[in-house]
Amino acid sequence: MAQVEVKDIDDLPKCPANYTALTPLWFIQRAALVYPKRKSVIHGARQYTWDQTYERCRRLASALAKRSIGPGTTVGVLAPNIPAAYEAHFGIPMAGAVLNSINIRLDARTIAFLLEHSRAVAVLVDQDFFMLLQEALGLMAKKHGSGFEPPFLVVIGDETCDEGNLKRALRSGAVEYEDFLQEGDPGFEWQPPDDEWQSIALGYTSGTTSSPKGVVLSHRGAYVASLGAALAWEMKGSGVYLWTLPMFHCNGWCYAWGMAAFCGTNICLRQVTARAIYASIAEHKVTHFCAAPVVLNTVVNCDPQDRVPIPRGISVMTAGSAPPASVLAKMEEQGFRVTHTYGLSETYGPSVVCAWKEEWDSLPPTDRARMNARQGVRYISLEGLDVVNPDSMVPVPADGSTVGEIVMRGNMMMKGYLRNPEANRESFRGGWFHSGDLAVKHPDGYIEIKDRSKDIIISGGENISSVEVENALYGHPRVLEASVVARPDERWGETPCAFITLKGSGDPNEDESRIGQDIMNYCRARLPGYMVPRSVVFGPLPKTATGKVQKHILRSKAKQMGSPPKSRL
Amino acid sequence: MAQVEVKDIDDLPKCPANYTALTPLWFIQRAALVYPKRKSVIHGARQYTWDQTYERCRRLASALAKRSIGPGTTVGVLAPNIPAAYEAHFGIPMAGAVLNSINIRLDARTIAFLLEHSRAVAVLVDQDFFMLLQEALGLMAKKHGSGFEPPFLVVIGDETCDEGNLKRALRSGAVEYEDFLQEGDPGFEWQPPDDEWQSIALGYTSGTTSSPKGVVLSHRGAYVASLGAALAWEMKGSGVYLWTLPMFHCNGWCYAWGMAAFCGTNICLRQVTARAIYASIAEHKVTHFCAAPVVLNTVVNCDPQDRVPIPRGISVMTAGSAPPASVLAKMEEQGFRVTHTYGLSETYGPSVVCAWKEEWDSLPPTDRARMNARQGVRYISLEGLDVVNPDSMVPVPADGSTVGEIVMRGNMMMKGYLRNPEANRESFRGGWFHSGDLAVKHPDGYIEIKDRSKDIIISGGENISSVEVENALYGHPRVLEASVVARPDERWGETPCAFITLKGSGDPNEDESRIGQDIMNYCRARLPGYMVPRSVVFGPLPKTATGKVQKHILRSKAKQMGSPPKSRL
Repeated sequence: MAQVEVKDIDDLPKCPANYTALTPLWFIQRAALVYPKRKSVIHGARQYTWDQTYERCRRLASALAKRSIGPGTTVGVLAPNIPAAYEAHFGIPMAGAVLNSINIRLDARTIAFLLEHSRAVAVLVDQDFFMLLQEALGLMAKKHGSGFEPPFLVVIGDETCDEGNLKRALRSGAVEYEDFLQEGDPGFEWQPPDDEWQSIALGYTSGTTSSPKGVVLSHRGAYVASLGAALAWEMKGSGVYLWTLPMFHCNGWCYAWGMAAFCGTNICLRQVTARAIYASIAEHKVTHFCAAPVVLNTVVNCDPQDRVPIPRGISVMTAGSAPPASVLAKMEEQGFRVTHTYGLSETYGPSVVCAWKEEWDSLPPTDRARMNARQGVRYISLEGLDVVNPDSMVPVPADGSTVGEIVMRGNMMMKGYLRNPEANRESFRGGWFHSGDLAVKHPDGYIEIKDRSKDIIISGGENISSVEVENALYGHPRVLEASVVARPDERWGETPCAFITLKGSGDPNEDESRIGQDIMNYCRARLPGYMVPRSVVFGPLPKTATGKVQKHILRSKAKQMGSPPKSRL
Repeated sequence: MAQVEVKDIDDLPKCPANYTALTPLWFIQRAALVYPKRKSVIHGARQYTWDQTYERCRRLASALAKRSIGPGTTVGVLAPNIPAAYEAHFGIPMAGAVLNSINIRLDARTIAFLLEHSRAVAVLVDQDFFMLLQEALGLMAKKHGSGFEPPFLVVIGDETCDEGNLKRALRSGAVEYEDFLQEGDPGFEWQPPDDEWQSIALGYTSGTTSSPKGVVLSHRGAYVASLGAALAWEMKGSGVYLWTLPMFHCNGWCYAWGMAAFCGTNICLRQVTARAIYASIAEHKVTHFCAAPVVLNTVVNCDPQDRVPIPRGISVMTAGSAPPASVLAKMEEQGFRVTHTYGLSETYGPSVVCAWKEEWDSLPPTDRARMNARQGVRYISLEGLDVVNPDSMVPVPADGSTVGEIVMRGNMMMKGYLRNPEANRESFRGGWFHSGDLAVKHPDGYIEIKDRSKDIIISGGENISSVEVENALYGHPRVLEASVVARPDERWGETPCAFITLKGSGDPNEDESRIGQDIMNYCRARLPGYMVPRSVVFGPLPKTATGKVQKHILRSKAKQMGSPPKSRL
């Protein structure tokens, strides 16, 4: 049949009936249709159902549109995990605008930098963060002088907080969020973007290494990332999700949109403490929550009197940094099912999952935890993941020991950094995104992070993974938190220096040098000699607003300490 | 900040790192990476693991490519649910070609029509269907004479069958499938399509109303439909899926691809009988299967000696025609969890699901079945579903009684009918796909099918839903199958005529007219008078190759019967 023209099998064009932009906005429209009376968002005494949440999002979109806030503009949100922050994930993109959720732990100077860089035309701000925002706007006004046009401000009142802050905000001219919603049309006919590549959200990297970069995400990416996140966790429709993870971290790792896909229930949490987590789980029959390892650490080590009986089998997803195997083992012991994932702001949050294998079920608990402490394999919606030599782009062998850089590509990858062509060229070179994280690939194809490129310690020509040393440290019964960096060393070039927060510290009579010695002995029994920390420093660890340890600060401290005397040549 | 240019938030271009075609081909690559040693496909003594299945698919793609079978060409597959049929879903599109799974119940004449219309350049054929294919090719040769160039033939041997058919095929020059795979490269580097809108599969409508139309599906659509299908069923990774549903029906309603997304296990089934279904469930610990209502009917009414003990809670998805509430109730009674879905070849299979609501749990069983017998709401990957007046396109009120046409739109909609611009214009008019199915919308937004447009019976000016009458008939203890069509009536225009297959029939002394009377009395107690069948005919029902009752044959019969004497004017 070779004589006939066969290509017409592809000649059928897209039309309004068979093609529409992929966007997570469709999820909430469906949730309101299918489960209108199921609880959508619960915040203390405030309880909404899906039809109400959808209506509130449409009102928000409509109110923004009435003020000409639409495509091409960015709207900032500075709020903890409250209903308005959730609604912003739908209402702002429904107006065609781009959502920029701002980390509430940032200082005024950084917030000013972000608002200026994102060119926010409006900001929704929680009443308790209004003064912080004002301070940031003050810095911007000072810099720009009379040419400064401040963004339009909407203040979100919260009856669980002191009303003083709300009153102050209203006096200074901000519109109250509920009043603003009243300006909007509850039946607003939002439209999907003309092009699914259109931007839906902007998030800033936490800047552990440089000034924050603006990560731009698309409607298409948010759609596949949300479904991928749901599938990675095998979530069910009747799920109850506790917001321990801030929504300003990668849009709550896409679960802000994902929960609408699953028509589940969102439980807000203004203050994330072990006590509040346990109480919420018990009260709302929580089935799922996400948390950085530092929060898991708080949960497993919490004061027994903050703990209330909760069912076993609650699903926990962790990401943000490599969780020590000991923390994973303790979580499992306490009945939590932990899914370990890894990702970056640039990949819409986690995009790599340590997919569980049946055969691990029969391993001893510590081996199970060790398997699960690896970063794993690609999400179904991330099409490419590898560990390569970053110069040659040749994949490392799957031998569990050759270190290379983690690279990724596919539909869960950001559009790029905002107004930063150089960073885009650099990070997308060779057709892959360069994560800057160093890892090995195990024979089973699972990857395991060894370090950030700049966190590697080079001692006597040997590369030392600071993560590996930290993992050993976390096994010690007195270690609550540990971070290891390079300390200059005249003999070895660098040696590992451990910064440690002790459990139950506070006893002024405690002999720290004895504990330090004990910890070094502990490591000596478990690590090659060159990897054992040569120095141990006790005290609280400096952290970024996203809860990551600021290793650059520890590195400066270690540098100031200079070479240990006995290493001098 | 209005003075600045803000549109650059959308100015970040697609690049190889952040954009790739959506295609289900990614799923199997991941399954082989993550669960290489998990069972992928089981067919009797043949058992494959995911790394093996992936390698076989790559070999198939490579072998096709070596014979210049690639983009723009169609490859036919004529086979029951055997491993090769599964592999074809990946291997053929990996070569860039379009998969056309052909219904094995079709006759040679129709197969000839399909092969000619699809311009198949190659056909993979199961050994037991080779003679049927030869017959079809003979018809084509006769029609085209010396200009006829037959497609390249690959015959699939099956050790569970008589080898005579295989030998005959090989003698006539076909290449054996396993030999063909040997021609291919196991490490073939397949590429995703340049454009995700490229065609991945072609399926023919069953032609209950006209000659078969070729439904063309895209890689993008197959990706979102597969994930949507997985989400609609809340499938889990460790699932074991029994292939009761033919893979040639809408690519096994997209579960051919979906099972690779979930890295589950496929259990092949050459012959679908109640005995084989029960035996497979017990042997392989099946967790999920799909079946048309006619198969469910066989399962619930099966001979007790074909039944073996199986666990409760097995998930069953049904679609293909509206399942009678009585069948749903019996399935539930026997411990199956039935998800009722609705769709068409044009929507990649089911695209509407009767999403279960918590509040139905406490209803009496018959009410639960009645709720679940409704077609429901859109899949998450179908963006538009409505019931409208097909002329004005105005949605009907959600009153549960106003009948309109079901229309759909979005990313689960076919690209169009192959070489049929008129049908495309007609079915996509007004920016929606017109299903030809008539339904009502209930106050809760769930839709319920009343009839195919042409199956409606108009009696004395009243519209009668044949489905509603059939539902009543299925409640009668002696009714195994029922189909209702219009019979001409001089007085009323039309009256309902019921064609019925009785349970346990075969007793020649049975008084059919007494049973007929009893059935009419039964309906009279449950339906408005004008809806009660005026005539009942017993015997087997004529069915299409997809198991749908051929109402047009029954309509001709009813027409031949003419008006009932007592209705004459």
